[in-house]
Amino acid sequence: MDNRGKKYLLKEKQDFQSDLGIIKEEDIENGEIGSELKTHLDHTFKIIKPTVNDFIDLMDRRCSILVQKDIGAVLSHTGLGSGDRVVDAGTGAGAIALNFANVVGSEGKVYSYEIREDFTEVANKNIENFGLKNIEIKNKDIKEGIDEKDVDLIFLDLPKPYEIFEEVYDSLKLGGWVTVYAPYIDQAELAYRVAKKLKFHNIEIIEIFERGIEVKAQGTRPKTRMVGHTGYLVFARKL
Amino acid sequence: MDNRGKKYLLKEKQDFQSDLGIIKEEDIENGEIGSELKTHLDHTFKIIKPTVNDFIDLMDRRCSILVQKDIGAVLSHTGLGSGDRVVDAGTGAGAIALNFANVVGSEGKVYSYEIREDFTEVANKNIENFGLKNIEIKNKDIKEGIDEKDVDLIFLDLPKPYEIFEEVYDSLKLGGWVTVYAPYIDQAELAYRVAKKLKFHNIEIIEIFERGIEVKAQGTRPKTRMVGHTGYLVFARKL
Amino acid sequence: MDNRGKKYLLKEKQDFQSDLGIIKEEDIENGEIGSELKTHLDHTFKIIKPTVNDFIDLMDRRCSILVQKDIGAVLSHTGLGSGDRVVDAGTGAGAIALNFANVVGSEGKVYSYEIREDFTEVANKNIENFGLKNIEIKNKDIKEGIDEKDVDLIFLDLPKPYEIFEEVYDSLKLGGWVTVYAPYIDQAELAYRVAKKLKFHNIEIIEIFERGIEVKAQGTRPKTRMVGHTGYLVFARKL
Amino acid sequence: MDNRGKKYLLKEKQDFQSDLGIIKEEDIENGEIGSELKTHLDHTFKIIKPTVNDFIDLMDRRCSILVQKDIGAVLSHTGLGSGDRVVDAGTGAGAIALNFANVVGSEGKVYSYEIREDFTEVANKNIENFGLKNIEIKNKDIKEGIDEKDVDLIFLDLPKPYEIFEEVYDSLKLGGWVTVYAPYIDQAELAYRVAKKLKFHNIEIIEIFERGIEVKAQGTRPKTRMVGHTGYLVFARKL
Repeated sequence: MDNRGKKYLLKEKQDFQSDLGIIKEEDIENGEIGSELKTHLDHTFKIIKPTVNDFIDLMDRRCSILVQKDIGAVLSHTGLGSGDRVVDAGTGAGAIALNFANVVGSEGKVYSYEIREDFTEVANKNIENFGLKNIEIKNKDIKEGIDEKDVDLIFLDLPKPYEIFEEVYDSLKLGGWVTVYAPYIDQAELAYRVAKKLKFHNIEIIEIFERGIEVKAQGTRPKTRMVGHTGYLVFARKL
Repeated sequence: MDNRGKKYLLKEKQDFQSDLGIIKEEDIENGEIGSELKTHLDHTFKIIKPTVNDFIDLMDRRCSILVQKDIGAVLSHTGLGSGDRVVDAGTGAGAIALNFANVVGSEGKVYSYEIREDFTEVANKNIENFGLKNIEIKNKDIKEGIDEKDVDLIFLDLPKPYEIFEEVYDSLKLGGWVTVYAPYIDQAELAYRVAKKLKFHNIEIIEIFERGIEVKAQGTRPKTRMVGHTGYLVFARKL
Repeated sequence: MDNRGKKYLLKEKQDFQSDLGIIKEEDIENGEIGSELKTHLDHTFKIIKPTVNDFIDLMDRRCSILVQKDIGAVLSHTGLGSGDRVVDAGTGAGAIALNFANVVGSEGKVYSYEIREDFTEVANKNIENFGLKNIEIKNKDIKEGIDEKDVDLIFLDLPKPYEIFEEVYDSLKLGGWVTVYAPYIDQAELAYRVAKKLKFHNIEIIEIFERGIEVKAQGTRPKTRMVGHTGYLVFARKL
Repeated sequence: MDNRGKKYLLKEKQDFQSDLGIIKEEDIENGEIGSELKTHLDHTFKIIKPTVNDFIDLMDRRCSILVQKDIGAVLSHTGLGSGDRVVDAGTGAGAIALNFANVVGSEGKVYSYEIREDFTEVANKNIENFGLKNIEIKNKDIKEGIDEKDVDLIFLDLPKPYEIFEEVYDSLKLGGWVTVYAPYIDQAELAYRVAKKLKFHNIEIIEIFERGIEVKAQGTRPKTRMVGHTGYLVFARKL
């Protein structure tokens, strides 16, 4: 982080370069979390251990990623915890897999299915850079089968998630959740109806809004700009 | 869970009693997750391993607890993960501490401050029942001092959280977050202003709304009933 | 209105009776707007000229009525004004017709179609009681034809409003609006698609939320209770 | 309106000029509402009688104007109708005065106070162009006194509206409403508290949200962009 608050990712075995100057590779390696380094232009940078969100902000993001309000709702609604096993389909750049992996920890595991080879590569590089060992990216169409059993959470960010709900049911452990992210109401509705027909319980569609509040000298007010919609979340549980 | 979908908590070394009949203690002890037991009235019950949310729904809740939408926003905004250290003040029945403990896992730890002795007892019993070892409830006023250092997240559900922001700053590790839950806009605003005056960064006030959608034979529509407000969340970070 | 703020409707040629006592018919007739009357139990009542909202609150309401937030959106989006001509279908107890009539005034006119005879009677009685002369209730199915031409606004609160959109188009004047109130998203979507196929312009679906704020000694906060959904409003214009 | 749906205001005694060509003054004067005119470049234009919203979209708007969702809430909450008398302070370009005048009609009247001379001129020109006779713009600070009595609605879009609440009370008729538009929560709260101290009834603060829904080939979904906040509306009534 520079003294303006802007953050950067350090890459291994490279000098760090920015518009505020260069920091030599050896200085970085000698530095620790919290230590301050100076560039050749005499600007100060601080080394900070990134949270999963810091990392996702800075990593290679070739495709749109789920926003925090929706990730939070998935985490809290399903009660995902340390040690859990997660399957996620539609890896993209790996952001949601990183979020899940951050929660399930070294005793848990995230299996992430991505049909496109280029996305798989980006995701693999991102995960390697962040240093998490508990994610396995699979360059495979999840519609051809889910290899895992006894899964706590299956998260689907796919156009027609309901097509594999029978397989999903078989792969979930008792008490496990499937969660669907659906931008269109039609998808969410169909996911609801299919889950109802199968043996799922606690089926719900929800939508999350987030609004920021700004505090200024003149007074306090909600922010003018707000995201009106990202997607619906459909939850269903095997009981 | 009975065959109507209603859930119950099993207690150790006791027969299970319900309006659908009794299940003997020895039958329960011989049962496993997923096995079905019959009551003396021939009703079927299934044994399910509770998630943290299942447990919180059924535990002794003597005081109001944070709703899922807000817990989710705290988890995703701060990027809380497995292995993290959390301080929480205003334990109540221990629900939020359980949520944090579920995420930080056995390599992490939650320290929860509660000023009232009766709440401390309830929370301790709840945590013991759920079986998590990584929570320590402290029957102590957090305003007298925070014992922990190098904390990833300090969560404050107190009337005047900003009074201890200096101590909070000292206890946080670099990159750590303080989060305030504030029902009133005045509290949130003051927390924002105090955090601004101190050395905090990335200060934000947000509000989360959740709306359910119902799918019926006649069509699909948002639910009529919705919670209009629970509380504001104030985030600030030590950088 | 009594001294607790509760409002009552006066009926012609009758004594006024309440739990706070009786006021004689002759006293009421001698009273004016603003004058205070006493019951035989010595409680004070004030005579107030009701606004259209006061009246709707107190009138015979046998069926659900549109809420203010939605009525307001119809008024402001279509720019309805004094002197305009309105057709409304699905009269019910006449509330929305009263709202329109209140705006269009004596130089405008509201034609309200209601298929059920019992609702027609209720609506006629309500309108007579309020004293507006510019509403004509028609006990007739609007699907059998719209008698009026050159209409500024056609408001449809019907299950399948899009079935009569061609007729609606013919009855509207150039620049006139049709507005549909649709509880289900499927209805709103279909209305949108049909309007698009026909020659309508400026087609829009919107949803209005209203949230109250409460000011208390402890502080200010949005109200906990909020209506999550009433209906979608679909607007389309003949240009 | 041209054949692309774009609208223009016609000015008296002038040729009409656009990027699609010129229409001669005499052609315009011979045209009627609904007739089609051709430019010298052979493009077709249609003459349409503007609603108050059409006019406001096209008029000289030198300052920010209230959005439709808020205007609608004022109209429906106060039950403003044909024949009513309105005072509005903070005229700006005259948009809200035009909206009120459109509703109260020729039997009603709008008195609009504006402290700045340049805004007064703009507003006067706008009102003259639209052709409404029932608005009087006063280039005067409303804090120096409200000339009108027996008013149905006083609408205040001022920084400190509560400073004149006593005068407002005197000018309102029994049953009349004051409405305050306040961007900041602090203003709204103070208006609420002052109204409470004085003799006002039915005091309420509300906030209106509007969200659009989009219907596309792939499906239906709420629009991504949404306005998060415009202002709070405070209502209070003289009873």
